[in-house]
Amino acid sequence: MTEPKPETVVPILDEAAHAATEQEINPWDVQAARDEQGNSLAFDYVAISQKWATKLIDDDLLRRFETLTGHKPHRWLRRGLFFSHRDFDKILDKYERGEPFFLYTGRGPSSDALHLGHTIPFSFTKWLQDVFDVPLVIMLTDDEKALFKDNLTFEDTHKFALQNAKDIIACGFDLKKTFIYSDIEYLKGHFLMNVWEFAKLVTFNQVRGAFGFNESTNIGRIMFPAVQCAAAFATSYPEIWGLFDPLADRSKAIAKIPCLIPMAIDQDPYFRLVRENSSRMKCPSPKPALIHSKFLTALQGAGGKMSASDPTTAIFMTDTPNQIKTKINKYAFSGGRTTVEEHRELGGIPEVDVSFQYLSYFEEDDEKLKQIEESYRKGDLLTGELKKLAITLLQEYVKEFQDRRKEVSDEVMRQYMAPRKLEWKGNPNPKPKEPKPESKPKESKKEKKGKKENKEAEKNS
Amino acid sequence: MTEPKPETVVPILDEAAHAATEQEINPWDVQAARDEQGNSLAFDYVAISQKWATKLIDDDLLRRFETLTGHKPHRWLRRGLFFSHRDFDKILDKYERGEPFFLYTGRGPSSDALHLGHTIPFSFTKWLQDVFDVPLVIMLTDDEKALFKDNLTFEDTHKFALQNAKDIIACGFDLKKTFIYSDIEYLKGHFLMNVWEFAKLVTFNQVRGAFGFNESTNIGRIMFPAVQCAAAFATSYPEIWGLFDPLADRSKAIAKIPCLIPMAIDQDPYFRLVRENSSRMKCPSPKPALIHSKFLTALQGAGGKMSASDPTTAIFMTDTPNQIKTKINKYAFSGGRTTVEEHRELGGIPEVDVSFQYLSYFEEDDEKLKQIEESYRKGDLLTGELKKLAITLLQEYVKEFQDRRKEVSDEVMRQYMAPRKLEWKGNPNPKPKEPKPESKPKESKKEKKGKKENKEAEKNS
Repeated sequence: MTEPKPETVVPILDEAAHAATEQEINPWDVQAARDEQGNSLAFDYVAISQKWATKLIDDDLLRRFETLTGHKPHRWLRRGLFFSHRDFDKILDKYERGEPFFLYTGRGPSSDALHLGHTIPFSFTKWLQDVFDVPLVIMLTDDEKALFKDNLTFEDTHKFALQNAKDIIACGFDLKKTFIYSDIEYLKGHFLMNVWEFAKLVTFNQVRGAFGFNESTNIGRIMFPAVQCAAAFATSYPEIWGLFDPLADRSKAIAKIPCLIPMAIDQDPYFRLVRENSSRMKCPSPKPALIHSKFLTALQGAGGKMSASDPTTAIFMTDTPNQIKTKINKYAFSGGRTTVEEHRELGGIPEVDVSFQYLSYFEEDDEKLKQIEESYRKGDLLTGELKKLAITLLQEYVKEFQDRRKEVSDEVMRQYMAPRKLEWKGNPNPKPKEPKPESKPKESKKEKKGKKENKEAEKNS
Repeated sequence: MTEPKPETVVPILDEAAHAATEQEINPWDVQAARDEQGNSLAFDYVAISQKWATKLIDDDLLRRFETLTGHKPHRWLRRGLFFSHRDFDKILDKYERGEPFFLYTGRGPSSDALHLGHTIPFSFTKWLQDVFDVPLVIMLTDDEKALFKDNLTFEDTHKFALQNAKDIIACGFDLKKTFIYSDIEYLKGHFLMNVWEFAKLVTFNQVRGAFGFNESTNIGRIMFPAVQCAAAFATSYPEIWGLFDPLADRSKAIAKIPCLIPMAIDQDPYFRLVRENSSRMKCPSPKPALIHSKFLTALQGAGGKMSASDPTTAIFMTDTPNQIKTKINKYAFSGGRTTVEEHRELGGIPEVDVSFQYLSYFEEDDEKLKQIEESYRKGDLLTGELKKLAITLLQEYVKEFQDRRKEVSDEVMRQYMAPRKLEWKGNPNPKPKEPKPESKPKESKKEKKGKKENKEAEKNS
């Protein structure tokens, strides 16, 4: 195999700028910073990564990924849409040794149709599932959405969850390896026991800090983080491992299987909480590993996020080819110049051009993308021509989705949502564990204690 | 039928006294007031009833009960062990009209064996079930006990719950009309949806006030009240009404079936919270009705409460006849005098005598009890003789329990704990509803609004 050389082609819309108001990113509220005129600035993803002490995904990590799996990193990794991680390298260690892990992702069903941005983590997770060949659980937090939206009932969000499940299935997941569940339907037994046990480890003060709650917050919201957190424990899904006795104790062996969570960066506070507390559970679990994505930019450009409640900001997965064409032509913020002459002279600015950004996420061919970028920057490629390229790619992506979506009946949906044993293979060519070093002379108790303390100190740093 | 004349024979240990520290009664902590020397005073049940605005059970209410049901009120009603209520009169209205209601009670499984005090609400509830012939649900809060006791795991409390279920069954419940459940096993589906929906209506500030939580309280504890509260909704138990589709919507018709909750007074804060919010649920429910009991006095007397963790305070349901004899003789606080001569001269004080109090709760014959009281007060009956009478009654009560307990196998326990349709008859001779008054001329919108406001004002008073 030749040495792979993945490279980040376009770091888009990421420049920090002097802000009059700071950006706000948490699971309930995502706001870009604004300048003194009140204009949205681009999200500063490097800043949020530094603030939350995540690691940026770099070329070394991607090279190792490719060497281990034999797969070229997904274009969303190569182009920085998935830009940050926690312990993804440790998951690669697991994969290398042929040790089990699972994938976990989810969605809060606040509406009955997905837009393009919603499908990104699912399309990416489907790709991870293909590459790693591991079980996957997908959580639909219909409990959460009704708790956090005053105008939605639990019946509403549960119905959205079932509709969303169909859309998620249409992202192409393998039935044998995928369990999709609605919290309202599935939360009970070992999962619920994990939720309560986790809740016992976390005080109001801790969630207040992490999620911006206050004393007037309802007690359901205060509790909810324990649900999303406990979903990261393998023991919450006894059935997928073939354990069907609801009265059996949770299995300590299964508790040790870690998960990898692909998700948008705003969900990170939940999983910091899991990572802080997972070893304190009665069946201690390793810290879950995370891969963070940026938000898919709204049609209007920098600092916006596609929103289900504003159709002019987003491409919906139900849009017709013509609607996609109209939305891109009408709303997609352009980095082109005001006249053709000016454009030919000065060139376009791909960094702020939304059509170019979408192109960069949906054009697989790195070389072709580079040519488009250069041609646009030089002014050879006009805005209309660039938009046309983006429109074609988006129409294709949405059409493929719609074709698969047609096949997803209620019955198919219920197959994915049935708690059952999943089937997977994992790494077909695992590298055996390093042989254990020769046994050393026994340490005294005191030395052991000293080591333990060092380890604790490391952990808390 | 002759006019029934129930009367409260002995109002024991209820006198208020000047206290140096106030009594503390809440679901997690029950402490009697203390005098300036630090001695426990008797619980002041009238004060707690006034503070919490409950109604005292009076002779009128008991007379109505007897007229309606044809049953003499239980001796624990006649003698004030169950002393207070909320809307018990409304449940009698329902019974009178042959309308459905159900019974709900429960236990926090913090140990694997019950003491005498634990069986009181169950024996009383069994009697209510016999009298009213209605369905009964019994909740075992194994989730709560692990959340509130740092040294107990959810596995521990779940095991206790199953053991406790057997003891509860041994109180004599009718299988056809009784569903017993462990929260850890049963909480899901419609019940869980009710829990979340209820939690959405209640803020941290509200439970902080009602339950004495603070910012360092774990989020499981903060959430738990929603579980105990939602258990009062008929829709939490679709199966007992014959509804088995977990995906069906909660039934508005069933939501209207109220419950009657027999319980110790310390649990009242939970149900005040339900009563304040039940009409705000999507399927609005009537306020649950409550009957409150006092605590069964510890062997050591006034201001104490039987405690599972201190065997010298309590008669256990596993005690042998000899152990019961020894405990009463050795520990039961006596209202007798220091010498026989003095006793003959001054007489005993039944009000503070623990053996006499137990006698008053277990001797069915009002006349006989009155004679014992008088004889003791006059000094004719000696302490040893009084203790012997109490010992005999307690030995009988415990033996009957133990005989039934032997019959409760794992299989029997699982029959009671299976979610299933219950079978009951209700009132065999209901009095039909008053015919509706002649239809009046339609009110204007304004008049209606005025009436509604009056009603609201009434409700909030």
